[in-house]
Amino acid sequence: MKTGVDHIIHGGDYNPDQWLKYPEIIDDDVRLMKKARINSATVGIFSWSVLEPEEGVYEFGWLDEVFDKLYENGIDVILATPSGARPAWMAQKYPEVLRVEESGIRNEFGVRHNHCPTSPVYREKVREIDRRLAERYGSHPALKMWHISNEYSGECHCELCQAAFREWLKERYHNDLEELNDSWWNGFWSHRITDWEQISSPKYRGEDHVTALKLCWDRFVTDSHISFYENEIAPIRELTPGIPITTNFMRFYDRIDYQKFSKKVDVVSWDNYPCYDGTDTLKKAAETAFSHDMFRSMKGGKPFLMMESTPSVVNHRPVNRIPAPGTQTLTAVQAIAHGSDSVQYFQWRKSRGGHEKLHGAVVDHSGRDDTRVFREVSATGELLEKLKDVAGARSRGRVAIVCDFENSRAVSHFCGYNNVRRDYLDECVKWYRPFWLSGVCADVIAMDDDFTQYDAVIAPFLYMLKNGTEERIEQYVRNGGVFVATYLFAVTDEDDLCRLGGLPAGKLKDVFGVIAEETDALPEGINEIAAFDGKEYKAEHVCDVIRSTGAAVLGEYGSGFYAGQPSVTVNSYGKGKAYYVAFRNDGELAVDFCRRLIKTHGIKKDAGIAAPDGVVFRKRGDFVFVMNFGDGDAAVTLDREYQNVSDRTTVRGDISVKANGFVCLKTL
Amino acid sequence: MKTGVDHIIHGGDYNPDQWLKYPEIIDDDVRLMKKARINSATVGIFSWSVLEPEEGVYEFGWLDEVFDKLYENGIDVILATPSGARPAWMAQKYPEVLRVEESGIRNEFGVRHNHCPTSPVYREKVREIDRRLAERYGSHPALKMWHISNEYSGECHCELCQAAFREWLKERYHNDLEELNDSWWNGFWSHRITDWEQISSPKYRGEDHVTALKLCWDRFVTDSHISFYENEIAPIRELTPGIPITTNFMRFYDRIDYQKFSKKVDVVSWDNYPCYDGTDTLKKAAETAFSHDMFRSMKGGKPFLMMESTPSVVNHRPVNRIPAPGTQTLTAVQAIAHGSDSVQYFQWRKSRGGHEKLHGAVVDHSGRDDTRVFREVSATGELLEKLKDVAGARSRGRVAIVCDFENSRAVSHFCGYNNVRRDYLDECVKWYRPFWLSGVCADVIAMDDDFTQYDAVIAPFLYMLKNGTEERIEQYVRNGGVFVATYLFAVTDEDDLCRLGGLPAGKLKDVFGVIAEETDALPEGINEIAAFDGKEYKAEHVCDVIRSTGAAVLGEYGSGFYAGQPSVTVNSYGKGKAYYVAFRNDGELAVDFCRRLIKTHGIKKDAGIAAPDGVVFRKRGDFVFVMNFGDGDAAVTLDREYQNVSDRTTVRGDISVKANGFVCLKTL
Amino acid sequence: MKTGVDHIIHGGDYNPDQWLKYPEIIDDDVRLMKKARINSATVGIFSWSVLEPEEGVYEFGWLDEVFDKLYENGIDVILATPSGARPAWMAQKYPEVLRVEESGIRNEFGVRHNHCPTSPVYREKVREIDRRLAERYGSHPALKMWHISNEYSGECHCELCQAAFREWLKERYHNDLEELNDSWWNGFWSHRITDWEQISSPKYRGEDHVTALKLCWDRFVTDSHISFYENEIAPIRELTPGIPITTNFMRFYDRIDYQKFSKKVDVVSWDNYPCYDGTDTLKKAAETAFSHDMFRSMKGGKPFLMMESTPSVVNHRPVNRIPAPGTQTLTAVQAIAHGSDSVQYFQWRKSRGGHEKLHGAVVDHSGRDDTRVFREVSATGELLEKLKDVAGARSRGRVAIVCDFENSRAVSHFCGYNNVRRDYLDECVKWYRPFWLSGVCADVIAMDDDFTQYDAVIAPFLYMLKNGTEERIEQYVRNGGVFVATYLFAVTDEDDLCRLGGLPAGKLKDVFGVIAEETDALPEGINEIAAFDGKEYKAEHVCDVIRSTGAAVLGEYGSGFYAGQPSVTVNSYGKGKAYYVAFRNDGELAVDFCRRLIKTHGIKKDAGIAAPDGVVFRKRGDFVFVMNFGDGDAAVTLDREYQNVSDRTTVRGDISVKANGFVCLKTL
Repeated sequence: MKTGVDHIIHGGDYNPDQWLKYPEIIDDDVRLMKKARINSATVGIFSWSVLEPEEGVYEFGWLDEVFDKLYENGIDVILATPSGARPAWMAQKYPEVLRVEESGIRNEFGVRHNHCPTSPVYREKVREIDRRLAERYGSHPALKMWHISNEYSGECHCELCQAAFREWLKERYHNDLEELNDSWWNGFWSHRITDWEQISSPKYRGEDHVTALKLCWDRFVTDSHISFYENEIAPIRELTPGIPITTNFMRFYDRIDYQKFSKKVDVVSWDNYPCYDGTDTLKKAAETAFSHDMFRSMKGGKPFLMMESTPSVVNHRPVNRIPAPGTQTLTAVQAIAHGSDSVQYFQWRKSRGGHEKLHGAVVDHSGRDDTRVFREVSATGELLEKLKDVAGARSRGRVAIVCDFENSRAVSHFCGYNNVRRDYLDECVKWYRPFWLSGVCADVIAMDDDFTQYDAVIAPFLYMLKNGTEERIEQYVRNGGVFVATYLFAVTDEDDLCRLGGLPAGKLKDVFGVIAEETDALPEGINEIAAFDGKEYKAEHVCDVIRSTGAAVLGEYGSGFYAGQPSVTVNSYGKGKAYYVAFRNDGELAVDFCRRLIKTHGIKKDAGIAAPDGVVFRKRGDFVFVMNFGDGDAAVTLDREYQNVSDRTTVRGDISVKANGFVCLKTL
Repeated sequence: MKTGVDHIIHGGDYNPDQWLKYPEIIDDDVRLMKKARINSATVGIFSWSVLEPEEGVYEFGWLDEVFDKLYENGIDVILATPSGARPAWMAQKYPEVLRVEESGIRNEFGVRHNHCPTSPVYREKVREIDRRLAERYGSHPALKMWHISNEYSGECHCELCQAAFREWLKERYHNDLEELNDSWWNGFWSHRITDWEQISSPKYRGEDHVTALKLCWDRFVTDSHISFYENEIAPIRELTPGIPITTNFMRFYDRIDYQKFSKKVDVVSWDNYPCYDGTDTLKKAAETAFSHDMFRSMKGGKPFLMMESTPSVVNHRPVNRIPAPGTQTLTAVQAIAHGSDSVQYFQWRKSRGGHEKLHGAVVDHSGRDDTRVFREVSATGELLEKLKDVAGARSRGRVAIVCDFENSRAVSHFCGYNNVRRDYLDECVKWYRPFWLSGVCADVIAMDDDFTQYDAVIAPFLYMLKNGTEERIEQYVRNGGVFVATYLFAVTDEDDLCRLGGLPAGKLKDVFGVIAEETDALPEGINEIAAFDGKEYKAEHVCDVIRSTGAAVLGEYGSGFYAGQPSVTVNSYGKGKAYYVAFRNDGELAVDFCRRLIKTHGIKKDAGIAAPDGVVFRKRGDFVFVMNFGDGDAAVTLDREYQNVSDRTTVRGDISVKANGFVCLKTL
Repeated sequence: MKTGVDHIIHGGDYNPDQWLKYPEIIDDDVRLMKKARINSATVGIFSWSVLEPEEGVYEFGWLDEVFDKLYENGIDVILATPSGARPAWMAQKYPEVLRVEESGIRNEFGVRHNHCPTSPVYREKVREIDRRLAERYGSHPALKMWHISNEYSGECHCELCQAAFREWLKERYHNDLEELNDSWWNGFWSHRITDWEQISSPKYRGEDHVTALKLCWDRFVTDSHISFYENEIAPIRELTPGIPITTNFMRFYDRIDYQKFSKKVDVVSWDNYPCYDGTDTLKKAAETAFSHDMFRSMKGGKPFLMMESTPSVVNHRPVNRIPAPGTQTLTAVQAIAHGSDSVQYFQWRKSRGGHEKLHGAVVDHSGRDDTRVFREVSATGELLEKLKDVAGARSRGRVAIVCDFENSRAVSHFCGYNNVRRDYLDECVKWYRPFWLSGVCADVIAMDDDFTQYDAVIAPFLYMLKNGTEERIEQYVRNGGVFVATYLFAVTDEDDLCRLGGLPAGKLKDVFGVIAEETDALPEGINEIAAFDGKEYKAEHVCDVIRSTGAAVLGEYGSGFYAGQPSVTVNSYGKGKAYYVAFRNDGELAVDFCRRLIKTHGIKKDAGIAAPDGVVFRKRGDFVFVMNFGDGDAAVTLDREYQNVSDRTTVRGDISVKANGFVCLKTL
């Protein structure tokens, strides 16, 4: 199932339900949307208290009018289910719909989300309102997509959830407590379980030191959200089988395993809020690119949607500096370049009250269309119409960065070595960035995704290996793959049980030709020296102390008690190569290492463009996007002729790209 | 009703009830008080467990003796009601008198305050003990004033308070839930209320994101304390109609709206604990002056009392450095200069045990009268006797700083722009300080106080406008007033609902001749440049991006994407002037701006005294007080002859004021 | 009762119960232990869920095998009782065994410790399992010692503990509430108690400001752990009267008064985890030496055990840097030098799972015996065999540092002066360090230990005096002792009630010949100048302002408003001397002061060895241990001939000690 559109969606969250007593404003919205070249509106998020103001009393009239008005004006509708917040009457009548925190005390009604994902009452209520929405709007011609709930997140510790967790464990461990005890190493601190009822969710006032329990709870939380989602979509799938379904993910919210959840949606979508405040722009652009590629990779390169972004500024950060003018459009271009079929905003119009009343919007409280922000959004809309043909185009990476959600959780739980600096996501971005800077398309994958299609696979800080991963790495290298591992590699198994027999675990010792004997941790600001290819680098935070049992040594530590021991190795195994980078680097080694990797292994770039630092390029379909995240205007050299999409002129040779600007090129 | 005395009160908290088993110490107290020229003692604070050791069993004998002994020695009594702490037996028998925190768990007996202001049992018990005190001591000749409870503060989340809060809301919103829903913008996140019972106090485990709810809760908390207070004073007012009533406020405790509460007391009093530790002395002196003027302004310039201050050092700060010798007396002089009719201490004698046993006192555990502190207090007493004639003199400001308690709460709640630096009080002091340094008497008022008597009104960061304020500002300027507003001005209404149609809200766009289109926030340490009158200043934390629609531009931004847009404007409107300072300044602009304002608008100073930085002067009645908060001894030039109060010499021309010292002058 | 061995114990925590399904590993353990010269294994810690997998069902077979196997291989057993963690079935069936936190909410099953020390059910269960262990293994020839529970710690706020606390108070205060009220100064804030039931443990949501309550609670917590311990050992003492008993203490865990608890054990043992991460090595070595001497002093100089230490690195610190190679052995040597009869490790073999799976161990997950760590441990074992003759040797200090556990608690509770920097332990180490650096053996004692055997007693920051201490100090000095007190000396009595009549309290004014009138507190980074013996020093954090009433002034303050007042004094009283150091020094004064003290009062050193800074020496029995904690190799000069224990050569004159190394010498 595709995104359902053959153009780029330009839209955003639209809440006319907050303005029902201001009909003149709702009328003006349509005029303003057309002026801003908005072609889609996401309606219904958090609308439950208007849709069902009393239990069983439904009011759809206002929504009928919104659907019709938008449709008449050529604006598509993405319809949200309202389960992200529930009416106060429901919380009052059925307290079980609310969450219980670790303290054991049930929350009161308030804020949003805050629902128990297990509650039968809540599931029934959600299914019912979703069914009615599907019945009423399923065949409306404006309806193009379902937006299920909103940013699923959080967890509940109520008794219903405890019981569900226990059932989940019974299934995982084959109803065998002894298997669970062995897998969790419950002999430690006398934790052997003799009755499933003895198990409860991890919490500060109970058990919060058993990492296997915590990892299982994380997995259960993911599954409870997926199960809740599946309950939501059941009537929708039944009644509107042709309408694609999505739910909006958040950057790298690892309390839910998006790599698993994404398999359940038709279209992946995510909410993109980079913090461009004038500092570290290139770093933040890399992080955003990484996220785009991660969400794209979840569906094998299929287009995704940028479901939310701010047209100006957010309100929830400590200090919300306005990004430089032009940032909104550059952010839109980057999304398209990396595979998004949409540029959508939170929010169309600022609400008058509520927590997000000061969050940026296309239309401010002033209601004016001559603001800086409105003008920029309109210009973006104009550009997106010119980029129409890129919609639907898929991309596939030459290399893959393993950034695994379950490993992220495992890494967050363990106690040892460096407990201050874990930074799993940052580590993954650190190894993604050199490829991004070089114009090499990289996928971002889970450890159980297929490695075989990639020229190289880089797996930073892959501490925990899920079942089968060890074997798949071995096969990949044996058959000619290039695999790069770093410190604390392959330490534990899927239950976070330490592997015996020396690290890296099992067959990987042979694949990598090294033994990792100890792991040192370095306090912030204290570095060791580690060499690679004749150059010295800073080692920080974590250093494996390794010995080669056959690998070629590409560099050695230059300080510490392990000076002279290898810092980087490569081993020939079967037809492939296995690299081991024993230390955490500050980014410099990653750049040099990956450049060498690209050269050594002949990894292809997206285009033959030469650009200075800070300017990156990306190919998608017939288009090449050149984006300047650097500090000043930049000269870029093209190796062939292109059409400049903005003005349809032909360009070649040296062109200039403004600071915070871009050029969209079409291959001729 | 006046303060009841025709001299300056020199006294403080006196707790003989802690020393009933040490009669020799109580005897010695009177001797020491006379030696230190103490003329008043505040007794009975926290004495309940001695006054009513068992339920219904009263013991007044000890207090009778204290009254008589003090009276015989010419020492007045200020009698406190004991409701600030209750006996353990009461908490044991009636747990409802104790507070419930946000968790929903009721506190145990302990510390002080910690009472539910709504509890009928507690109100009854308080009324009864207060009645008995009034009956017994109401006609004692030593009794000069009532001190009700102590530093009202805190809040309770019990079911009784929840019910009272709902009743409060019903009254505010005319028993109309739809009005409440609209005013709170409850359509956001599906928060529409359909039953009053669905509402609860704001709390972390419920609703803490609805700013209108939070602002209403704040108002309810103020009203619940006022209601509790009114319950307290009912028998006292009935039995002792001629004795003035006060309760001691704290500096700027904005959880209670003192501007509202102050209308209910006969005399305003407050507890003054500046932190003079050798750093930022001038800033702390300005803050203290500001507080004095704020409390004075609450009663239209009528004298107030400095009910507490330390004779040496406090014990509750992280590090309690002893202020330089002389600070205690200078603090006393400053209080008198700004309108206090008293200098009172916490505490007369250090308790042997309890939380404040290491808090400074006039008499230490040593019991000696030859300590540095005792000598300083005695010298202060001597001076106050010479200043007797100033008692009762009122002052009125030439200008007013709007520092509104409700706005302070509104400012603390919103989410957006700069969430780290709000500093509402600091902003108000920043604009007060230039007048204080220049010898211009400034009032500190609420936004609903009368503007018309002032040459100029400065309203920093006036984000929320209560009903009618917009109209009153417009009228004030139209009729010739000078009004100064700053960034984030007039953003929301009394329910914190954003104003539509552009900022500043409503008519104020015409009054100020500007439109504020965006608001930027700057991280700590990052500044933009903003000009005024040809000079450049640092803009910090918050910058409005404004356009002039008619106002004269007095300066422009010199950096940021809004460089070239106005930073300071003035608009002629009717007979008056409306200034808009679009950015937060670091204090330098405020000084230059206010100097220009004083000059341009001919605002009068208290006296024609020329003094260097760090030396300030203030006129009260026939007295002029010159105070040196600077780093060294200072030369001050008088424009006329005065009598030096300390030695009754005549002074003129150049005089010297010692560092950390003062000169009290009397006009001849 | 002695430690039960005539050699140095080399062993550690051994958990075969976690490996019952890996018999090949248990078999290999014995081989590895012998290779590493391990002669003792501590078994059974946290083994309850294996010993009693179901209520009343005991399984000892595995432990029988472990005992036999170890015995056959010449390895002694120290048997732990398992009460530090309980089986899940017990928590499920008897929730009362779990702790209740201050919130009043009972914990769930989890982590370790976490038991109510009062619970009758838990006490019964513990007594029963302990009895069965004693019955089964009491006469096994491998059994050499009992290790009771593990690191007793924490507290419980359940109703059973509340009731026990009230009984404890009744006993302390002779069943007289009035005595309690007077002792606690309950008149303050109306806290008079009229029924024992009104008292509850201190807590944030009740009473946490009454220091006397808090101090009593601390004492009760100690007593509740001792009572729990006595319940544990009753069957053990009955059944195995000849086997010594210990429980492992932690460095300076002052929530339990080890100085009191130590009287109840046969052998003192403690867990030593210095944080050698390459910074402040000398300081950390001093702290470790201090702890050794403190635990040694608890039993009057009798040998103690270093029950735990890491063979490599720990896992629980923020950043766990690997100590430099050699540190493990140097740590072992230091322990022996200061009186330990053992070097024991946590842990023998890393567990595969659980919270400590990444904590250092002799045997890693690799199972290899060629690791750096295994080799170092083996070398240590070899050395310890050569030091066999030192076992059992006692030492006694020439001077004593008073570091009192109850004073530590009192110091932590009070509110006043400097609330940020209390650092009681650091202050004690600061005054211990000069003696350690000089080779003078120092004891570390409680304030109620005997002073008379010492040449000098130094009591830093002795704020609270237990009953009788004042008199004992006076007698000690009168009879010729040298006593050194510092700031905030003798402020309160045993109930933390301030002493009246001036400080130092009572007779101590005469002993010291000074009056302390005020106490100043200095913020971090702000210092006053204080002189001693013609040299200027930094005063930090706390300065007493004192006057001499007869003492000789050895130095004066050089800044602050008390410049010119004494900073250091000495008074001749009776046949002795009483020094008063009025300020907190940064360590420099302590070194110079103590050097002068050693010289003036002829205090003897352990040996005539001359060593540079960073190298320390200590005599025990016939052995002298020279340890280099400095930055580089060091030249040391011996005043006589010794045998070098490592190679049995004779050494004299100048020898070299490697950085992070040592030389063990035997007197010839």
